[in-house]
Amino acid sequence: MQVTKFAIPEVIFGRGSIVHVAPCARRLGAKRVLLISDRGVEESGWVEQVMDVMKASGLEWAYFNEVSSNPRDWQVRKGFEVYLEAKADVIIAIGGGSPIDAAKGIAILAGNGGRINDYEGANRVMRPLPPMVFLPTTAGSGSDMSQFCIITDVERQLKMSIISRSLVPNISIIDPLILLTKGQELIIASAIDAFSHAVESYVSRLASPFTTHQALLAMDLILPNLRRALEDGSIEALEQLSIASTAAGMSFSNAGLGAAHALAHSLGGRFDVLHGLVHPVLLPSVMRFNVPSCPQKMGTIGRCILGEPDCPDATAADEGIARLQELFAELEVPVRLRDILPDKSSLEQIAGAAVGDACNLTNPRKAGKDEFLSICESAW
Amino acid sequence: MQVTKFAIPEVIFGRGSIVHVAPCARRLGAKRVLLISDRGVEESGWVEQVMDVMKASGLEWAYFNEVSSNPRDWQVRKGFEVYLEAKADVIIAIGGGSPIDAAKGIAILAGNGGRINDYEGANRVMRPLPPMVFLPTTAGSGSDMSQFCIITDVERQLKMSIISRSLVPNISIIDPLILLTKGQELIIASAIDAFSHAVESYVSRLASPFTTHQALLAMDLILPNLRRALEDGSIEALEQLSIASTAAGMSFSNAGLGAAHALAHSLGGRFDVLHGLVHPVLLPSVMRFNVPSCPQKMGTIGRCILGEPDCPDATAADEGIARLQELFAELEVPVRLRDILPDKSSLEQIAGAAVGDACNLTNPRKAGKDEFLSICESAW
Repeated sequence: MQVTKFAIPEVIFGRGSIVHVAPCARRLGAKRVLLISDRGVEESGWVEQVMDVMKASGLEWAYFNEVSSNPRDWQVRKGFEVYLEAKADVIIAIGGGSPIDAAKGIAILAGNGGRINDYEGANRVMRPLPPMVFLPTTAGSGSDMSQFCIITDVERQLKMSIISRSLVPNISIIDPLILLTKGQELIIASAIDAFSHAVESYVSRLASPFTTHQALLAMDLILPNLRRALEDGSIEALEQLSIASTAAGMSFSNAGLGAAHALAHSLGGRFDVLHGLVHPVLLPSVMRFNVPSCPQKMGTIGRCILGEPDCPDATAADEGIARLQELFAELEVPVRLRDILPDKSSLEQIAGAAVGDACNLTNPRKAGKDEFLSICESAW
Repeated sequence: MQVTKFAIPEVIFGRGSIVHVAPCARRLGAKRVLLISDRGVEESGWVEQVMDVMKASGLEWAYFNEVSSNPRDWQVRKGFEVYLEAKADVIIAIGGGSPIDAAKGIAILAGNGGRINDYEGANRVMRPLPPMVFLPTTAGSGSDMSQFCIITDVERQLKMSIISRSLVPNISIIDPLILLTKGQELIIASAIDAFSHAVESYVSRLASPFTTHQALLAMDLILPNLRRALEDGSIEALEQLSIASTAAGMSFSNAGLGAAHALAHSLGGRFDVLHGLVHPVLLPSVMRFNVPSCPQKMGTIGRCILGEPDCPDATAADEGIARLQELFAELEVPVRLRDILPDKSSLEQIAGAAVGDACNLTNPRKAGKDEFLSICESAW
């Protein structure tokens, strides 16, 4: 085994753990916090809760909420100006992947200056960032665990993958009670995103024993608990989805992702779709494309989906992918590319941009523009 | 699930990873390092290797090697004086549990002052420590991963458990090539120590999904790879033992240990025995004592030992413990308490001291002095 690295934040996990936010910020030296979130999280009352906890602890803060789904480069710039004006010293974000990714972008500018677009790719963030505490409000993005930051470059119409060890926050506080206030579409999109993280990182070129076991744990938990969460909305099922999303985050942050995410980023930069809902469309086609490069691992994934521990690799891989497509269809989410794109005119551009995405580097099978085009055709 | 915490160092794992020590120290701001090791590690040439890497990188250092097996309180004090005199800013330790635990003790005094004995117990280290980089030379202690520091109080003749989040080092560099230079007795003692970490943390009162999966990974790997390492000394088997020890370290650092370690610390403070060789004596008796409190988990452990995935809990627990005792006997290590103690005269004192050890707090079944005495009797 070659040299491998494994880095995760300090994790505080459990119902009611949101109250740890103030002592955590203080421990990191906070005098004045920049708190980042969005209107959706505000509406469900969680931003106010964080503010109440900070107020009770005597912490001061500035607040920034101009973050959209698929956060934009100019939003990062604007948040950075608020950070400067506030003379903030610690960054706290509460939200799904979008506020957390925006927070990471702001932290990059705070520590390194320049434009966020300067840092696209792997290991281009050189100077330390201000301390970060993140509270995820979805069980999916894994951004609270990861070295990844995805920001939309508006001019180039693509989502930039920025990957750096220093983007792992100091502390991630994961309170599953927050999921009780989320709608079914978001629960589904998040769980599918987490499942894709587990699958792609499990077969990644950089997978290690420390990441594969986290990926397997996530895969084991997601499908049964997603079903249960949709049936009864129970906190037990939502908590298991949180555990799975955290484990998948530990895995993909260190092992990287693959062609499905490369394509999702390129597609998501051009069309403003909910990231988690791109995977039901792309993941099965990418999995089929990858089978020849990792038949045993695809067999393991297939057995996990099918719940048939004795099924041989080739059958399990094949039938597992088919079953996954059925499961996605049962969830009533878009499952064909034609459901989310107006026509095929953008496929060339989408395929071309996917080749250069950092996630493509760790896909087990080499994919150029032609391969991405044929994946898109098979997903059409 | 109640609120749970999971913290581990940044991990750099793999053959040849020792060369990362200088860039890691630099990244943590090192100008002048305190390097800690012992004569055994010196003799195998690894201390020189670390020095060569630091020299090539232009790092200055002071060196402290007055660390014995089961490091003493006065050794920590002496190392701290070297730290002060050298005006060191980063601590690097290379060794088994002893140099690493000594390094943690020195770091506590560097950050907090006072005597090391002041910090016995859980969460008594209040002020930050200097940055720490550890390179384990055994696949067992897990000290390079953990919040634990075990120092012998010479006057009271016991091993103090000092447990604090801040004892997790910044970076652990795990190079399995180092194990190629270790003798069989140390490989055995280390593997059994790691196995005990996995078993005790798996059934601990503080076990969480993040720790139980690490414990299971460790248990799965240790027994087959220990056998293989002893047969062929292959780097592949040693590497798997390293992975297992690291996983077990992630588990016990966050979930805590149990009655076997409480007893091992009390016994090891009074008699200067190799820590890993106390477990073959104590662990089976403690496991039997614990079965009524966690029959299902003990069934899982038993199935792992037996390699029989379909065996029912009660049979698996019972036969698994018996098989473990046979395996220990086959390794030709002491398996009865009478093999390592001169007579029964110290049992009362050993049992009494075990009750107050911090590891006893997380044992699944409450154990007072009488219970520890009866465990000792059954292990005699």
